[in-house]
Amino acid sequence: MASTLRLCLPRGTTILPAPVRALSSSRCLLTPSQTRRRPYSIAAPDASDQRLRAIDLSNFSITKTTTPKQLTANEKLIFGRFFTDHMLSLEWTAADGWLDPKITPYQNLSLDPATCVFHYAFEAFEGMKAYKDKTGQVRLFRPDMNMKRLNKSVARIALPTFEGEKVIELIKNFCRLEERFIPSQRGYSLYIRPNMIGTQKTLGVGPPGSALLYVIASPVGPYYPTGFKAISLEATTYAVRAWPGGVGASKLGANYAPCIVPQMQAATRGFQQNLWLFEDVDERTGEKEDFVTEVGTMNLFTAIVNKDGQKELMTAPLDGTILEGVVRDSILQLARERLVPEGWKVSEKKFHMREVADAAREGRLLEVFGSGTAAVVSPVRSISYKGELVNCGLREDQQVGPVTLRMKDWIEGIQYGEEDHPWSWKV
Amino acid sequence: MASTLRLCLPRGTTILPAPVRALSSSRCLLTPSQTRRRPYSIAAPDASDQRLRAIDLSNFSITKTTTPKQLTANEKLIFGRFFTDHMLSLEWTAADGWLDPKITPYQNLSLDPATCVFHYAFEAFEGMKAYKDKTGQVRLFRPDMNMKRLNKSVARIALPTFEGEKVIELIKNFCRLEERFIPSQRGYSLYIRPNMIGTQKTLGVGPPGSALLYVIASPVGPYYPTGFKAISLEATTYAVRAWPGGVGASKLGANYAPCIVPQMQAATRGFQQNLWLFEDVDERTGEKEDFVTEVGTMNLFTAIVNKDGQKELMTAPLDGTILEGVVRDSILQLARERLVPEGWKVSEKKFHMREVADAAREGRLLEVFGSGTAAVVSPVRSISYKGELVNCGLREDQQVGPVTLRMKDWIEGIQYGEEDHPWSWKV
Repeated sequence: MASTLRLCLPRGTTILPAPVRALSSSRCLLTPSQTRRRPYSIAAPDASDQRLRAIDLSNFSITKTTTPKQLTANEKLIFGRFFTDHMLSLEWTAADGWLDPKITPYQNLSLDPATCVFHYAFEAFEGMKAYKDKTGQVRLFRPDMNMKRLNKSVARIALPTFEGEKVIELIKNFCRLEERFIPSQRGYSLYIRPNMIGTQKTLGVGPPGSALLYVIASPVGPYYPTGFKAISLEATTYAVRAWPGGVGASKLGANYAPCIVPQMQAATRGFQQNLWLFEDVDERTGEKEDFVTEVGTMNLFTAIVNKDGQKELMTAPLDGTILEGVVRDSILQLARERLVPEGWKVSEKKFHMREVADAAREGRLLEVFGSGTAAVVSPVRSISYKGELVNCGLREDQQVGPVTLRMKDWIEGIQYGEEDHPWSWKV
Repeated sequence: MASTLRLCLPRGTTILPAPVRALSSSRCLLTPSQTRRRPYSIAAPDASDQRLRAIDLSNFSITKTTTPKQLTANEKLIFGRFFTDHMLSLEWTAADGWLDPKITPYQNLSLDPATCVFHYAFEAFEGMKAYKDKTGQVRLFRPDMNMKRLNKSVARIALPTFEGEKVIELIKNFCRLEERFIPSQRGYSLYIRPNMIGTQKTLGVGPPGSALLYVIASPVGPYYPTGFKAISLEATTYAVRAWPGGVGASKLGANYAPCIVPQMQAATRGFQQNLWLFEDVDERTGEKEDFVTEVGTMNLFTAIVNKDGQKELMTAPLDGTILEGVVRDSILQLARERLVPEGWKVSEKKFHMREVADAAREGRLLEVFGSGTAAVVSPVRSISYKGELVNCGLREDQQVGPVTLRMKDWIEGIQYGEEDHPWSWKV
């Protein structure tokens, strides 16, 4: 509750005036859809701002470790547990801007216990991967999307933005240095975690006067090492992940800790993940429904035969409550390019659990899958919803449906350079 | 997006089954009030659980600094910038429970860059103060409330709970050791910041297998060193702090970083704080309204003459979206005890900005003030709401109203031991 107001804004951040909203004098019952606030606007920092230092690649320094780690055997890799020899760091201060980027041996951060990241969750991250193709070439998958999203996330919590293309250059250098940690086997990769934290060491609640952007990396195996294993979901009806006017679209630490207990509760009942719903009025019927948003830490796709008899691949729209997944975007683009010619309809639209349950009951639910950087796609066998177990279209002996599998193959084909595609960036 | 599912629960946490909700088949338009989820239930850890170590006060160690700091002159104190010589720390692991508590010299935390507090906001804090009375006796104000709330906050994000009374004992010891930092002047105090962070150093999204509870302290001056200065608020209509089914009632880091940009935007337009609203249907009229929730990092109280001609002190109810302020609770109790006999009505109830604006227009708005540990009470001069500047009842030459001032005097009287009261705990 304690606070002091610091009026200084971090330089390089432009604050736009708040949107003006007209007073409504209508006397009608409010539907939750009508309660939606406009997302507020934060302009990207002006690149021509001469007051602050931009990232300077010419002063990039590399200090190599003198104690290189032993590689972990592929079969022993556990997501995010083993890290490479080095880390990439960029410090920022409100007075100077971005200080010189550096690669150093992987090491602890030494921070004052009053540092704002510990108290007020000034933290935003990204998840991306480096892949080794058959020729040994290292590749990144759409890193520009990660940089764009990280800039959006950090701006939302008053942390400094940066030139994404320069950080991609630095990450490429980092990947080259850590190349021996990137497994060459298909399905294996180097998980890269850019993370930005506020480092100001005072307890006043205000924009951080200093920050640290750092990148660490962890070699990882395939999410399903022995082939797909379809997961079962429990729909969470007592907690809400995100809401209109909140921060659900940003990849903030703040969106993660509050999601663990619902996930644990689902796990105690035998479900591998929880499904996040958002209760709202279905404007077509006027009825309240539980709209499908995300699953655990993934976006969610549903393939049905719709009431017009057409095959339709659906995912929730980017309305401010949905994380703007890079794999989500890739699936949508590939589906529009490759499934639509086969007669599919591809929709970013609101849909609710009763529609999914009805489709299942009527034999129209084809497949459900999550999408994310870790698993690419994650097939779903069933969803527990209000006492009903909705069967998501897989036969008992089947772990993945054809659309899910094709998506995985298409995307991995691009990631591992088997298909030549502009999404795959050679390092 | 990447995740692995760790199914192990931290021992000592009991997960209750999710509440069962009946299927509703009614065909009515949904009002946002109806969209409210029940708060989910997490049971407090079973104190009789023999598997995990409880906090052991008999193994409490103190290592004193060899380089004591110079005291900062009272007039130079800035909230949360200068800290005392020492810190109190308690480590926890899922395997062992609470390790031995220790006081050490104030020092940096050295943490792996993969530590979960940096990525997923596993962090919850408290704000409390130690006061020195006229006889030099050090006193705490309702520390049991802070411990109760911290336990609630940490349980919400799968961090370990603890026996509050033992941590109060440790904080008392800490205060005795740091006594020279507690100013003896009325209005001055030692701000105490207990903070718990998750310390597991893996990137998998799951309950932390280790945590650190630490306490640091900062000598602070009066929030308004030269007497009250009424603040002006800007109502935020484009961003929402909390939502039913969310975590707005918990003192999590996750609730703070997302609030900075709206506060900065208010500041650029000359307002010292922003006012958080929640749009919902007024059940009395069926109209949508902007309900008053909190101000910046404080709870909010409004004193009006209601339509029945009675003086009424109102604050938003604890519906899961409001921080459960210790000062808020104290004001309510004192108001019921001391203002009700004078004819006041005291209400925890939903009220909206149009009611406040109407009261102002009709000369019925007496006072508005924020409440929190930092300022105790913070008088409000005006609120900018949808293009209207609502005058909150102060004359131009007046910085505080009589109710606000009496509240401050009553509470400070108890905090500084001038009134003998069970809320003041001698150290």
